[in-house]
Amino acid sequence: MPVTDEAEAHEPDLTWLEEDRLHEECGVFGIFNHPDAAALTALGLHALQHRGQEAAGIVSFDGEHFHTERRLGLVGDHFTSRPVIDRLGGDMAVGHVRYSTCGDAVMRNVQPLFVDLESGGFSLCHNGNLTNALTLRESLIKKGAICQSTTDTEVILHLVARSEKRLFVEKYIEALLQVEAAMPWWAPTRNSSARDPYGIRPLVLGRLGEAWVLASETCALDIIGAEFVREVENGEVVVATRDGLESHRFVPKYPARLCIFEYIYFARPDSIIGGRSVYDVRKEMGRQLAREAPANGDMVVPIPDSGVPAAIGYAQESGLPFEFGIIRNHYVGRTFIEPEQRIRQLGVKLKHSANELQVKGKSIVLIDDSVVRGTTSVKIVQMMREAGAKEVHMRISSPPITHPDFYGIDTPDQDKLLAAHRTLEEMRAFIGADSLAFISVDGIYKAMGYESRDDDHPQFTDHCFTGEYPTRLRDREGPPQQKQLSFLAEVG
Amino acid sequence: MPVTDEAEAHEPDLTWLEEDRLHEECGVFGIFNHPDAAALTALGLHALQHRGQEAAGIVSFDGEHFHTERRLGLVGDHFTSRPVIDRLGGDMAVGHVRYSTCGDAVMRNVQPLFVDLESGGFSLCHNGNLTNALTLRESLIKKGAICQSTTDTEVILHLVARSEKRLFVEKYIEALLQVEAAMPWWAPTRNSSARDPYGIRPLVLGRLGEAWVLASETCALDIIGAEFVREVENGEVVVATRDGLESHRFVPKYPARLCIFEYIYFARPDSIIGGRSVYDVRKEMGRQLAREAPANGDMVVPIPDSGVPAAIGYAQESGLPFEFGIIRNHYVGRTFIEPEQRIRQLGVKLKHSANELQVKGKSIVLIDDSVVRGTTSVKIVQMMREAGAKEVHMRISSPPITHPDFYGIDTPDQDKLLAAHRTLEEMRAFIGADSLAFISVDGIYKAMGYESRDDDHPQFTDHCFTGEYPTRLRDREGPPQQKQLSFLAEVG
Amino acid sequence: MPVTDEAEAHEPDLTWLEEDRLHEECGVFGIFNHPDAAALTALGLHALQHRGQEAAGIVSFDGEHFHTERRLGLVGDHFTSRPVIDRLGGDMAVGHVRYSTCGDAVMRNVQPLFVDLESGGFSLCHNGNLTNALTLRESLIKKGAICQSTTDTEVILHLVARSEKRLFVEKYIEALLQVEAAMPWWAPTRNSSARDPYGIRPLVLGRLGEAWVLASETCALDIIGAEFVREVENGEVVVATRDGLESHRFVPKYPARLCIFEYIYFARPDSIIGGRSVYDVRKEMGRQLAREAPANGDMVVPIPDSGVPAAIGYAQESGLPFEFGIIRNHYVGRTFIEPEQRIRQLGVKLKHSANELQVKGKSIVLIDDSVVRGTTSVKIVQMMREAGAKEVHMRISSPPITHPDFYGIDTPDQDKLLAAHRTLEEMRAFIGADSLAFISVDGIYKAMGYESRDDDHPQFTDHCFTGEYPTRLRDREGPPQQKQLSFLAEVG
Amino acid sequence: MPVTDEAEAHEPDLTWLEEDRLHEECGVFGIFNHPDAAALTALGLHALQHRGQEAAGIVSFDGEHFHTERRLGLVGDHFTSRPVIDRLGGDMAVGHVRYSTCGDAVMRNVQPLFVDLESGGFSLCHNGNLTNALTLRESLIKKGAICQSTTDTEVILHLVARSEKRLFVEKYIEALLQVEAAMPWWAPTRNSSARDPYGIRPLVLGRLGEAWVLASETCALDIIGAEFVREVENGEVVVATRDGLESHRFVPKYPARLCIFEYIYFARPDSIIGGRSVYDVRKEMGRQLAREAPANGDMVVPIPDSGVPAAIGYAQESGLPFEFGIIRNHYVGRTFIEPEQRIRQLGVKLKHSANELQVKGKSIVLIDDSVVRGTTSVKIVQMMREAGAKEVHMRISSPPITHPDFYGIDTPDQDKLLAAHRTLEEMRAFIGADSLAFISVDGIYKAMGYESRDDDHPQFTDHCFTGEYPTRLRDREGPPQQKQLSFLAEVG
Repeated sequence: MPVTDEAEAHEPDLTWLEEDRLHEECGVFGIFNHPDAAALTALGLHALQHRGQEAAGIVSFDGEHFHTERRLGLVGDHFTSRPVIDRLGGDMAVGHVRYSTCGDAVMRNVQPLFVDLESGGFSLCHNGNLTNALTLRESLIKKGAICQSTTDTEVILHLVARSEKRLFVEKYIEALLQVEAAMPWWAPTRNSSARDPYGIRPLVLGRLGEAWVLASETCALDIIGAEFVREVENGEVVVATRDGLESHRFVPKYPARLCIFEYIYFARPDSIIGGRSVYDVRKEMGRQLAREAPANGDMVVPIPDSGVPAAIGYAQESGLPFEFGIIRNHYVGRTFIEPEQRIRQLGVKLKHSANELQVKGKSIVLIDDSVVRGTTSVKIVQMMREAGAKEVHMRISSPPITHPDFYGIDTPDQDKLLAAHRTLEEMRAFIGADSLAFISVDGIYKAMGYESRDDDHPQFTDHCFTGEYPTRLRDREGPPQQKQLSFLAEVG
Repeated sequence: MPVTDEAEAHEPDLTWLEEDRLHEECGVFGIFNHPDAAALTALGLHALQHRGQEAAGIVSFDGEHFHTERRLGLVGDHFTSRPVIDRLGGDMAVGHVRYSTCGDAVMRNVQPLFVDLESGGFSLCHNGNLTNALTLRESLIKKGAICQSTTDTEVILHLVARSEKRLFVEKYIEALLQVEAAMPWWAPTRNSSARDPYGIRPLVLGRLGEAWVLASETCALDIIGAEFVREVENGEVVVATRDGLESHRFVPKYPARLCIFEYIYFARPDSIIGGRSVYDVRKEMGRQLAREAPANGDMVVPIPDSGVPAAIGYAQESGLPFEFGIIRNHYVGRTFIEPEQRIRQLGVKLKHSANELQVKGKSIVLIDDSVVRGTTSVKIVQMMREAGAKEVHMRISSPPITHPDFYGIDTPDQDKLLAAHRTLEEMRAFIGADSLAFISVDGIYKAMGYESRDDDHPQFTDHCFTGEYPTRLRDREGPPQQKQLSFLAEVG
Repeated sequence: MPVTDEAEAHEPDLTWLEEDRLHEECGVFGIFNHPDAAALTALGLHALQHRGQEAAGIVSFDGEHFHTERRLGLVGDHFTSRPVIDRLGGDMAVGHVRYSTCGDAVMRNVQPLFVDLESGGFSLCHNGNLTNALTLRESLIKKGAICQSTTDTEVILHLVARSEKRLFVEKYIEALLQVEAAMPWWAPTRNSSARDPYGIRPLVLGRLGEAWVLASETCALDIIGAEFVREVENGEVVVATRDGLESHRFVPKYPARLCIFEYIYFARPDSIIGGRSVYDVRKEMGRQLAREAPANGDMVVPIPDSGVPAAIGYAQESGLPFEFGIIRNHYVGRTFIEPEQRIRQLGVKLKHSANELQVKGKSIVLIDDSVVRGTTSVKIVQMMREAGAKEVHMRISSPPITHPDFYGIDTPDQDKLLAAHRTLEEMRAFIGADSLAFISVDGIYKAMGYESRDDDHPQFTDHCFTGEYPTRLRDREGPPQQKQLSFLAEVG
Repeated sequence: MPVTDEAEAHEPDLTWLEEDRLHEECGVFGIFNHPDAAALTALGLHALQHRGQEAAGIVSFDGEHFHTERRLGLVGDHFTSRPVIDRLGGDMAVGHVRYSTCGDAVMRNVQPLFVDLESGGFSLCHNGNLTNALTLRESLIKKGAICQSTTDTEVILHLVARSEKRLFVEKYIEALLQVEAAMPWWAPTRNSSARDPYGIRPLVLGRLGEAWVLASETCALDIIGAEFVREVENGEVVVATRDGLESHRFVPKYPARLCIFEYIYFARPDSIIGGRSVYDVRKEMGRQLAREAPANGDMVVPIPDSGVPAAIGYAQESGLPFEFGIIRNHYVGRTFIEPEQRIRQLGVKLKHSANELQVKGKSIVLIDDSVVRGTTSVKIVQMMREAGAKEVHMRISSPPITHPDFYGIDTPDQDKLLAAHRTLEEMRAFIGADSLAFISVDGIYKAMGYESRDDDHPQFTDHCFTGEYPTRLRDREGPPQQKQLSFLAEVG
């Protein structure tokens, strides 16, 4: 058993095991032409809170001045007070929630960023990572650019600022084209928005009366009662104006490749992406998993909350009863005091507890949506056994994660991934379950309505399972990266 | 439709409808004789966080000095940092989480309270309300007592301080006996703890190595790995000493009458009270509800999170599929900026959203655990219809709430209770559902394993459904209460 | 040389020598019947800021509620903002600035204190120390009183609260009479004010239109343009009402004995006490000092700021030129971060520096108003020599301080007083001056206009020079005080 | 009387008259090669606090990383705590105190600024204003530079960053040369420092053991015991290295022209500039004033603190007694809550009060060092009369200020300057004095040891009196400046 009771006995404080989770990237929301722009942006960000809990920011524009409010913490903690909303005047606003995929959790990195251009102010926020950000940053600094943050986003700002094109949309596209092999999208208050050439991150367009709305997911349209219009296309720039919507393409049109983790884990279950209900897809993954890897058990138990829809599907397909054998404490995950140690290490025991009388003496089929390092699985299997479970069969509704992500998902180094270098039996032994199974790669494509993965033109971005990255990884090339991002030590 | 779209159209800000919920009271945790007393207390309070989210406090005692840290906000926001825990030295500690049932959400009311007695320091926290607190407070002030807070708890402090008994436990019991018709329990760092004569609020005793632990619920024992010993009896004072546990009775022994809302709503589903799993009881209530009030529908949909176990029971009994047709946003409820307006008014739309593709065109059976004012139900039924539900059948796993509580549950005035003066049909019309049914009073007793309610000696405190209060309501007697609690205006 | 260069060389940080100063006690201001009560109180406190810089507080009363704002720091830092003043509604207010003579510099000790009495609210602040406060506190706690602070002031609150007299002024006087051997005075918002039986601390009465004003010094009347009416008499209670001013005596009338340090050091030079200009008295002390102890020097140099008026007098009497040979940095003394270490240890070098080109090669006559431990004098003489002074003659415009104070002045223990156990020559050697002289005790009485001290009925409280305390020192009697004021450790 | 009692009667709050003062610019301190670099920098800045009280910052460099701490408020409020100093690791540090001559009092404008260059980090602070900053800023933004602050200092950063020179000192000089008609100087942690071509602002070089120290004034060397080496020359760049000190010139050598206000008002009296004691120069100006404009009076009264040295000189020359007829309250000027309204409007009454018994019935000669708008003079003359002064003769130890400054002194627009468009008699009538006189321009040159002003090659920068600006005022040329510095509204 890799984690012993003794170890815990000596550490009755708050630092157990790291949480074994791919971390959400970011969420973006923008609205143009509405008198309550900032208040609606706060609501939209609240609906997108699951995409990032470390910081939130809103920038608004009143036709003359930009107003900015950025905070560490949750949207609901800071953007619900009248004075804050009142300071954010104007009828267009853009907001951002973030999990620190890049750059430390300090104020100078909180988005949206703002910059004075010659032709006026410009505010930008961005979801995802650039794979050539370091390369571009070095090149910019060589040319005398002064970088104030360590985010990828600032790199785009500089590219826009330095463009010698005349129109803003041209500057914008020129910047997009330099962001080599990029998958970001963003939403400046300059009422423009773009989605990367592959459409890796989602972006939807909505309408609320006369106003245009842009958001990461449809749930952010729902909360304010906005109507879904369409998704922004991969490689498209949309510009909202008082006369309507302009659309520009900056790369030729080819099929999008959405990050499959949006379906598996990131998006909210009530969001609709690519015409599919995220909840339905997850349930269908559970059904497919039940077909591929049935288990002999007394009940199906989800690891809440993310394993719930797949567990319902598994239960429905297998005919086993669905029970909450594990209870989740929802008051977790907001301790910013010591980010490195706390946010990531406040772990399983604080978050999950066994529903002991349910579990005792039973053979249970545990459903989770993914396994990263396996550390949470170890703890949960152990917790089930301590609660008296007779057998524990683990079923995972995504394939083994064998490769890290470089497009905005916070993944550990490859050698920390449970599935990177282990056989299924080694993984089972590590986790301590009586049996272990993953859905197949083709299985998830089936759950999405395809026959199988199209290996020539894959329908989704799925390198975490397949190792096939859609873009060149410029910053990872050449000698190993020892680059110092900034000479400034962060001191809070 | 009582709530119109127009109303919302004019209020796109953050103040919709009040949340329709009985609010949690408080949670208490104490530990004696453990070197990590404060850290373990923080964990215990974290497990009890569902019992109160407005404030938390810990007092510890190091044999010479008491140390106190009290904060507005969640346990995890303040009591996870090393410096805070380190300041709370000593091997005994007591902590409290609170929802402001009494006294405003200001620092001077945050528990535990501390006082210098002649014989040493004394710290006390308390769960529940006194029904003669105002009467006692007036009498104490007449005798020259100086009250610093507006909490009931301080009244008990004064009674202990003024007792002329010699031993602390005698003083303590003398105070308990004056707290007429009381149902509180508390846990001073003076390693004593008591439960009210009726046992209305739960209190359990645990053991962790050489340490004694006292907590509101067993889930707080589980988080630190403490062993459950027994419940503290109603009318019992327990005193933990280095030599063992003393037990004193301050009223004769008779059967306890736990507040039935602990099973219905307050306690965490993985807690065990009176030998019953709370989760099982809730599921059983769902089953009983299905037997009493079947519904023709395509699926069973819980109002998350509190309606989930009953919905699982209802689905299992009825054979209908269980589906998450409503998604809950867990990032809610932490805005302390303007408590009156925000905490209570940030409502349904921020918390729940429809899982549209699931619900569309379906006849759904909505399960909730209780209806208070009915305002949430109105909104949720409306939300289901807007999402395209064909029919909405509402089923409630507790009987109609017709009477307010005065023992620590934050209930609205009686005339605001939906069920106080309405027929079932009037309630259905108000809510806008196609059908509506509640479980019967005897039904919940059946779900608990009884034949029916014993009207002569009711097994639980259930006045909210029956109007039968277990104690005299002294502060409510005589002329209507216009009393000014304090001449000091609260200004943050 | 007691302080070596080596010592400093190893401590280039911010902790030099303790400041050698008797610390100011407190200042009080109250106003009754003015629509801008709180704003005027803020101004009055600002004028009294020299009497206490650690904390300030204002309580106002609007006829229905009391409002309270208390802060660590300066008046000008907190009580100049509109929102703070606006929250302090009502036409009567009372305020307090304090140096922590008693009780730690923590919020719970900041005055004014407030309490709910049976008959309404009551707010009190107080200047000076009780000599039987500990004795009274013990007795009160024995009777069940709950003390929230460790200040003397709270003791008075309890005495008022417990009085069984009918009228407030009677309760108040009853409390005053128990404060044995007292020298406090205070100013509750209950529009009453009292001065101790000896009149040790000053208290003046003023008029601003229809409003009554009470303040520690006349400079607080001047700043708001109020007219000086008279001093409150020793042993008098004055009660301002809308019909006029009531006066009550609680002890028979006998001549007052103001603390002579008000003239020497505490009061602002532009205040008028007992009909005398404080500035004039100080200058006259300098003149008398010049007559008693002439010095051969090239110039008279004050230790700024407190030595300045005496130095002007000395220069005028001696005919020597007056020069600022020492420059004071006024941006000192506001560091609350680590009160024990910082406030008291940020010393001479941070505050004073030599005006080198003035001093070089000259024989200088240094004038200071007092010497406590002598540590500042050591440093300043050393600084003068390092700047090239040929000779340094030290002249002090008060007699040697041989006894500590117990009435509200923060004096060190007797054995730390330079003059307690040393001859004049030993003191000179310690300080390192070429000559040293103090004014005589009779000399200061001469400067006040008397022939000499009347040893039978001394005109002032002067025990620091004479050892003759005007009252019994109850808390100092019996076995040595090892009392623990509170079992609660202060943790910020 | 321009200011009536009625006006005040209606404004008993905290907003009287604006303070009539030229505001201090900035102070800089740097140290290289000392293990306690940050602590010593804090002390140096404390000694320079009179040059700017709004904000302070320190950047240190530990050989690998830069560390930065910047705060609104006084040095002593923030830079005395161990944790702050400890975070500023390394053996070189640079610090800055500022009065907001340029850019609002917001954090993003607090110096020193930091930037990542290609070759490493670079930190810069700067004293004075550029006269072509706006012009340069516009040009930089046109070239794609992203400006994060609105300070002049950032312009220099960009020029350095964009230089294509190889060596840092070359980049630095290239930037200096573009700063057309400049008078700044600065002190980067890159251990270099420069003084403008005219030497308008002072800069001294000192030595503390092996360490090199650079500071605005000698008083900052004195506080840490550093030895004065020499002044940095105008047009010189000095670079401290471990091997010694390099000196570079970026303009040919010609005589310096120090800003004469350093002697009149800005520098601390114990500083030595150009070999002269500032205190002596001020006293000599008072003597010269007495010779030029004698007055019949009973006493000489300074307006404290700045008028004191001149008043001592005037008294010595005239033979009249020197008395403090006006008392200054030193607890003023620290209210950052509403900078526009508060810092500048908390005025005369809060700062000065009459020493009434001194002044009554006397004919007084008031000495001040300068008159800007005249508003303070009006109030003080009025205060003297209200205190009973028989006659008030005003004497000013600097010539009439007729022209604004553009080099870092915060002067009002020209039409608000009392002396810009008024005759002496009109000024006297405005102020309400019985007589008024200023020292002559030649008079101040005499006080400095010259025969008279050399109009061909003036020895000092004195355009405020003469209108002769030493440099071209590029930003003031062309059409009237309506430029919007930034599109970002400042919201705290």
